[in-house]
Amino acid sequence: MLSGNQVKTINALKLKKNREIQRQFIAEGSKLVIDLLYSSYHINALYATPEWIGMNAASVRLGKIIPQQVTEKELSRITALNTTSPVLAIVSIPSAEVQPLSFNNKLVLALDDIRDPGNLGTIIRIADWYGISAVICSETTVDLYNPKVVQATMGSIARIPVHYTSLADFLSGLPATHKVYGSFLEGENIYAKELSDKGVIIIGNESNGISGSVAKFVTDKLHIPSFSTGGFGEHAESLNASVATAVICSEFKRRIM
Amino acid sequence: MLSGNQVKTINALKLKKNREIQRQFIAEGSKLVIDLLYSSYHINALYATPEWIGMNAASVRLGKIIPQQVTEKELSRITALNTTSPVLAIVSIPSAEVQPLSFNNKLVLALDDIRDPGNLGTIIRIADWYGISAVICSETTVDLYNPKVVQATMGSIARIPVHYTSLADFLSGLPATHKVYGSFLEGENIYAKELSDKGVIIIGNESNGISGSVAKFVTDKLHIPSFSTGGFGEHAESLNASVATAVICSEFKRRIM
Repeated sequence: MLSGNQVKTINALKLKKNREIQRQFIAEGSKLVIDLLYSSYHINALYATPEWIGMNAASVRLGKIIPQQVTEKELSRITALNTTSPVLAIVSIPSAEVQPLSFNNKLVLALDDIRDPGNLGTIIRIADWYGISAVICSETTVDLYNPKVVQATMGSIARIPVHYTSLADFLSGLPATHKVYGSFLEGENIYAKELSDKGVIIIGNESNGISGSVAKFVTDKLHIPSFSTGGFGEHAESLNASVATAVICSEFKRRIM
Repeated sequence: MLSGNQVKTINALKLKKNREIQRQFIAEGSKLVIDLLYSSYHINALYATPEWIGMNAASVRLGKIIPQQVTEKELSRITALNTTSPVLAIVSIPSAEVQPLSFNNKLVLALDDIRDPGNLGTIIRIADWYGISAVICSETTVDLYNPKVVQATMGSIARIPVHYTSLADFLSGLPATHKVYGSFLEGENIYAKELSDKGVIIIGNESNGISGSVAKFVTDKLHIPSFSTGGFGEHAESLNASVATAVICSEFKRRIM
C-alpha cells in the first residue's frame, strides 16, 4: 500500500524543479523499466502489480531492488502518463560532465533547442538504432527526464548517453579539424555529398532551425532536398525535426556499410 | 458573433460519425488554412479574427468564401486542439473512388492500420516532401479528418491524395508484375537492395507490423538494419512508424536523382 507521502513525493517528480532537487525521475511501462533494470541506471524504487513482479522476477533481481507490490488503482494515482502501466520505477539521475574531447572520434548528435518531448524521445530512439555515440542537448532543450520524453525513448534512454551543456562551449572545445554538420536551406544536397563517419550533426529547433550562435561552428552545410513535383504551386515547407534526424542518420550510416 | 447552433455544429465535427454525416471537417492554423484555400478543397465556412482576415485578404479571396469575424474567445469555444489559432475553417470532405490501375506507374504508400493521429499526419507530410503520388489507407487506419491528423500534416493534406479502402482489395486489383514492398525483420537490407521508382510501399501497424492478409501480396521484403553497437546487450527494438516511412521514402527517392 502506497503511503500519502510516497504518492506526494512521486507526483512531485512530474515537475523539472523537483526532479532536480530529488535527483531522480519516473519511468513507466514494462519494456522501458526492464531496459533500465539491465542498464547502468540505479533504480531507487519499483512499484508493480503482483502479476508483473511474478512474470519479471529475473529482471527485478538485476535491479538489486525489492519491488513494492501495489494495485493498478494505486498505480493510477502516481502515473505521469495518460495510460497506467503495471510497473513504475523511480530512477536516479546520473551526474555526468561533458568532455568535448571524449567525442573526438565519434559521430554524435547535438540538439539546438528541441522543445517537443515526443521529438526528443524519438531522436534518442533513432540515435540508438543508428549507433550514434551520444546526444548533446543545448540547455534550452526539453528535459530528458520529462515523463513524456522518457516514454517516447521506448527504452533507448537506457543505452544512449545524453548530456546537457552550452552547445557553443561544447563546439568551441572541439579540435579545429572536427567536422560539424548542420541542415540549412542553402546547404549541399545530402544525397550527393561526402559524409564523414565521425563528427557532430546539429539538429535545429522545430520552428527556427539552427540558432546563429551555433551556426557559426558549422563546417559543412547540408540540405535534404524535396522530391515533390509541385501540385498547387507549393510543397511541404519542412520535415519534422525527428524525421529529418532519421533521414540524416540513415545517410551517414549507410555509407559505412 | 457565433450562434449557439454554429458552436454545436462545429464541435460535433470532433467525432468521426458526425464528420461522416456532415461530410465536412475542421482545419485550424494559419499555414494549414492558407494551404487549403490554395488547393482544390472546398471551404464551407471560415472563422477568423479581424487581424488575420486583414493580413490574409488575398488568400481569403481564393477560397471564394466570406469569412466570419470572431474573437479569440469565440475561437476557443470551437477549437478541437489544445491551442487556439486565429483562424478555423470548415472544409468539405471530397468523395473519391479508389481505382488501383490509376496508381500503376507511380510510387504510393499503403498504410496497414496506422492508429496514431500524429503518425498519420507526419506520414502525409513525408509523402508530400518525397513526391509520393498518393497514400492508400486501410479502413482501420485512423481517420484523415481527425483534427489531430489534419494538424500534424502541416498543410500537406492539401496536396497529397489520401484514400481509404480494403488493402487486400486494392492490392489484388494491381497487375501481377506490380512491385509491392513491405518491411519485415527477415527482409533484405534496404541500403543494398535495388528499388523501383514505382510500386506500393506498405507501412505496418505501430505494434504489430504488416498484417497477414496484406503480407501475402508483398513481392519484395525490405529491412532497415540497425547500426547499434550493442551496449547493454540490446538495442532499440524498432523505429517509430513515421520515422521508418521517412527512411524508406528517402532510400527510394535518392536513387532516382
